[in-house]
Amino acid sequence: MFITFEGIEGAGKSTAIASVADGLERRGRRVLLTQEPGGCALGKTLRTLLLDQKSVIASRAELFLFLADRAQHVAEVVRPALEQDIVVLCDRYADSTLAYQGYARGLDPAVLRQLSAEAAGGLVPDMTLLLDLPVEEGLARARRRNERLGTVSSEGRFDAESLAFHAKVRSGFLAIASEEPERVKIIDSSRPPAEVQAQCLRHLETLLQG
Amino acid sequence: MFITFEGIEGAGKSTAIASVADGLERRGRRVLLTQEPGGCALGKTLRTLLLDQKSVIASRAELFLFLADRAQHVAEVVRPALEQDIVVLCDRYADSTLAYQGYARGLDPAVLRQLSAEAAGGLVPDMTLLLDLPVEEGLARARRRNERLGTVSSEGRFDAESLAFHAKVRSGFLAIASEEPERVKIIDSSRPPAEVQAQCLRHLETLLQG
Repeated sequence: MFITFEGIEGAGKSTAIASVADGLERRGRRVLLTQEPGGCALGKTLRTLLLDQKSVIASRAELFLFLADRAQHVAEVVRPALEQDIVVLCDRYADSTLAYQGYARGLDPAVLRQLSAEAAGGLVPDMTLLLDLPVEEGLARARRRNERLGTVSSEGRFDAESLAFHAKVRSGFLAIASEEPERVKIIDSSRPPAEVQAQCLRHLETLLQG
Repeated sequence: MFITFEGIEGAGKSTAIASVADGLERRGRRVLLTQEPGGCALGKTLRTLLLDQKSVIASRAELFLFLADRAQHVAEVVRPALEQDIVVLCDRYADSTLAYQGYARGLDPAVLRQLSAEAAGGLVPDMTLLLDLPVEEGLARARRRNERLGTVSSEGRFDAESLAFHAKVRSGFLAIASEEPERVKIIDSSRPPAEVQAQCLRHLETLLQG
């Protein structure tokens, strides 16, 4: 089972993944937590390159670096785990490429879908949990997290973008969810953590029983 | 004018580029010499990653890293130079992707052409000079060069491949040349350097007068 978690910054993906992992382990499932970019050794190097605020990276080059990370991550981490019947929970995947590079930055979504499928060798998540909340709320949470950690967010480059940009990302994610309602489940992540966990597990229950 | 130089290892691309640059400068043209991978700062980092014999990089990931390098190199180096009417001479470009990743490693050439065009934003060379010679001769030259330099070739990962692999690369390049005879000119690079230079400049003459 390959489950991806998507959403804007501050949507609570990390918290949700940790609590879903906990819930699945209680049910006796082996679980692997991973992320894009940066879920493999190559990806960590690329993540540093991509998120370095000093690098001036052309938008097409950025896209292909994300795709290289995806290709390596799928081959090295995700597929081997799935073959061992481990549930893979992944923080961001192809829908982030589509929402950020496509809906928000204006690259052609049809081309992106094709490039992304090519990079992933056709691997599609069994279910995607879209953690959705108003952009202002997400960014306020992300800011508090960064202040608490005393560091620039690992998603620093996106923090610097405008509210309008994040609003486009959010509507991109919602558009994907409305196109693929079977795969993508919308979770109201403005609710308290325990309730978000319960919403996520309820959706996964169906898959677990399948 | 955007001119690319292609060929197997040891085909004499560096020597040919240097002598063609010399010939063009004598005719009063401004010339920029560059290369893929590694023709820009991002590319240099990627080149290190790609050519590091210790890295285990999935073939799809390798492809997307080459494409990221292409996207950045075209945006940062090639297009700005072309806009200033500088003749750009580039050591390897899209045909290398097609010959190495496609004809030799077995990725679908049609998909590769499309991915490559996407990365390059549609930039096609005005002319490509394919330096062609028998594989044994090329590899013997490459080995002598490496011994002389006392280092592993920057193309080390390909050195380690078999003769059969390089033979597939060579026939890949020749297939591309036969499909696109207007753009790709075959140069017999088993001839002495001065003659190779003359062959190259003769082909470029047509473009220069155009």
